[in-house]
Amino acid sequence: MGVIVQKFGGTSVADTERIRNVAKRVAKTYDAGHDVVVILSAMAGVTDQLISMASTICERPEKREMDVLLATGEQTTAALLAMTLISMKYPARSLMGFQAEVRTDCAFGNARILDIHADRIEVLLRQRNIVVIAGFQGHDCEGNITTLGRGGSDTSAVAIAAAIKADVCEIYTDVDGVYTTDPNICSKARKIKSIAYDEMLEMASLGAKVLQIRSVEFAKKYNVPIHVRSSFSQEEGTMVWSEEADMERLLVSGITCSKNDARIMVKGVPDQPGMAAKVLAPIAEAGIVVDMIIQSSPKNGTNDIAFTVPRTEYKAAMEIEQRVVEAIGAEGVYGDESIAKVSVVGIGMKSHSGVAAKMFSTLAAENINIRMISTSEIHISCVIVEKYAELAVRALHTAFGLDSDL
Amino acid sequence: MGVIVQKFGGTSVADTERIRNVAKRVAKTYDAGHDVVVILSAMAGVTDQLISMASTICERPEKREMDVLLATGEQTTAALLAMTLISMKYPARSLMGFQAEVRTDCAFGNARILDIHADRIEVLLRQRNIVVIAGFQGHDCEGNITTLGRGGSDTSAVAIAAAIKADVCEIYTDVDGVYTTDPNICSKARKIKSIAYDEMLEMASLGAKVLQIRSVEFAKKYNVPIHVRSSFSQEEGTMVWSEEADMERLLVSGITCSKNDARIMVKGVPDQPGMAAKVLAPIAEAGIVVDMIIQSSPKNGTNDIAFTVPRTEYKAAMEIEQRVVEAIGAEGVYGDESIAKVSVVGIGMKSHSGVAAKMFSTLAAENINIRMISTSEIHISCVIVEKYAELAVRALHTAFGLDSDL
Repeated sequence: MGVIVQKFGGTSVADTERIRNVAKRVAKTYDAGHDVVVILSAMAGVTDQLISMASTICERPEKREMDVLLATGEQTTAALLAMTLISMKYPARSLMGFQAEVRTDCAFGNARILDIHADRIEVLLRQRNIVVIAGFQGHDCEGNITTLGRGGSDTSAVAIAAAIKADVCEIYTDVDGVYTTDPNICSKARKIKSIAYDEMLEMASLGAKVLQIRSVEFAKKYNVPIHVRSSFSQEEGTMVWSEEADMERLLVSGITCSKNDARIMVKGVPDQPGMAAKVLAPIAEAGIVVDMIIQSSPKNGTNDIAFTVPRTEYKAAMEIEQRVVEAIGAEGVYGDESIAKVSVVGIGMKSHSGVAAKMFSTLAAENINIRMISTSEIHISCVIVEKYAELAVRALHTAFGLDSDL
Repeated sequence: MGVIVQKFGGTSVADTERIRNVAKRVAKTYDAGHDVVVILSAMAGVTDQLISMASTICERPEKREMDVLLATGEQTTAALLAMTLISMKYPARSLMGFQAEVRTDCAFGNARILDIHADRIEVLLRQRNIVVIAGFQGHDCEGNITTLGRGGSDTSAVAIAAAIKADVCEIYTDVDGVYTTDPNICSKARKIKSIAYDEMLEMASLGAKVLQIRSVEFAKKYNVPIHVRSSFSQEEGTMVWSEEADMERLLVSGITCSKNDARIMVKGVPDQPGMAAKVLAPIAEAGIVVDMIIQSSPKNGTNDIAFTVPRTEYKAAMEIEQRVVEAIGAEGVYGDESIAKVSVVGIGMKSHSGVAAKMFSTLAAENINIRMISTSEIHISCVIVEKYAELAVRALHTAFGLDSDL
């Protein structure tokens, strides 16, 4: 008999009929003798509706009040699930963020969890209650309502699982697990049975959308096993846990693809010390996050510096670099929004060479030019022209032996 | 410069456009130098929507969870008004029931306010904030969310006004004050400028709907002046305050009419001690509230006992009395759902005789039979046949000199 945290996303609680299905699943786990804590998101679409209502008041609603408004979404689903369970004769009780004592900093709209006093949750569990907690919300040290930002309910779930030392944190969603790549791009994508935190983090930051990065970071820090699975089937999903856990040993676990970046190249930068800082510091000062950076070898006393920024910041970054070019006497600045970043991710890469070579030759065989490359211990990313992205993903998926048998 | 509590009902905050109008009114009061605390209801219709959503889950949703669900309505409007004020450059801050420390008992769905720790409100006021509080909700000693029952926001407003020793509690609603009678029935109804708590209590319990009885009881207990006025005009409304306050001295302040009762008569009850108890005790045991009771003079060793019950309980009460009739050997039971209770209310009656006589003769002049009579120090009620109700109201309104000059 274990302690199990179950988190259900917005599509799983989209109406009272689906909430009834969630209740049945929760009840089944409870009947098996487990202690069950349920974390809920708002009904699908509700958070967006609230944001759009606030936007009729002003363009940028004050953040503290926005959090008070948004917190109603999860409050609603938590109350509805608890009353559904009670109508089925199960002892259930809802807790809001402040009642579950999810203490956060006061960064309204994007608060970070500081700690969770699990006393009340634990007392309720000892009395054999099913505890239903509104996800996405907490309270700061002054008792203000805070929210954790988009996808924050995953983080709530993992943090609460850590606080009560749960055996597993089950994340129910509308997909049935983490896939080797996006099944919409590659029909041969395969569900991954088991993946390490670090791999999952790379997958998430490189474009896989199934789990919020912050929740995986939290899970890694407190060693909470996550089970990502579908709320619409009984099938096992994907286990996300520490590297030491028993898992399939593949060289590469997955292929990701992101189209969220743009590339900027400053050409003809004088080959003098401090020039890279002069090119990049103004970007950082504007709060724009640079991902990849590449500097060419010097030629004729100058070199080229290329880097990627989020596509949403492309225009601002280009304007900054135009001013930089004038200031440092570079040749010019060139930008490209039509790029994609394709990555291979795998813990197995740590102890194997040849992954990069295989990636480059696979892309070459498809006549796809590589514009930029970045690597870490467990991933290699290549920037390519956007229109080749899907082809690249499929080719790499096959080359690294990830295709399913179907 | 005073401390002013302003409470706005559901129709006043029905959408973000109306919330903006509320914000302008609040801002005007603030600009005049007053400290302002605003109490809000949920948007018109929202509470009913939430109840109907819960009813798709089960017939009688568990009450604690129902309160969690319902509390989202006022949370939404409080956040929206605060962000509207902030967008207009006013320092505003929303507080939920638990943050404003509105402590109640744990009678979920119909909780009573025990006390309010006004420290946080007072600190915010001293910092010249506009404090926006979600009405209708509080928290019990275990930190559970509670709600105060229908119309509870009026009670929230008066209780908070008492706690912070406000100079006045303004109740903004969709009518512009308390009228001498229902203007829909009598076109000559006149707005009352000033009315005593006790009169208002009688008016409310006898059918006037403008203020919740509990809020008036609270106001009387803590001597909080209430100003009932329209949120759609700038006109003065009706002041509700203590008898000692300066007010118009009229014999009768208003005429009320209620069609919520039914009359039951048990005929031929043996004229023996204890028979009235045998007739009425089973009604009380069934939780049915009896309003008027009349026992006729004995004739031929029996008498008749008549009483009124809420019309919603009529059937249940009739079934009970049919069993009583058999048990005590009475002649039979007769019921009538088509009755109305017409009342005249006025503190002036305390020191004047002749009000009853005038009421009876006025009804007689219209050929209206009086079926039952009840009186208190400041009201006289007559039960009549329902179809004469409007005629009776108009005749009494004229007879007691309440007609407006229009």
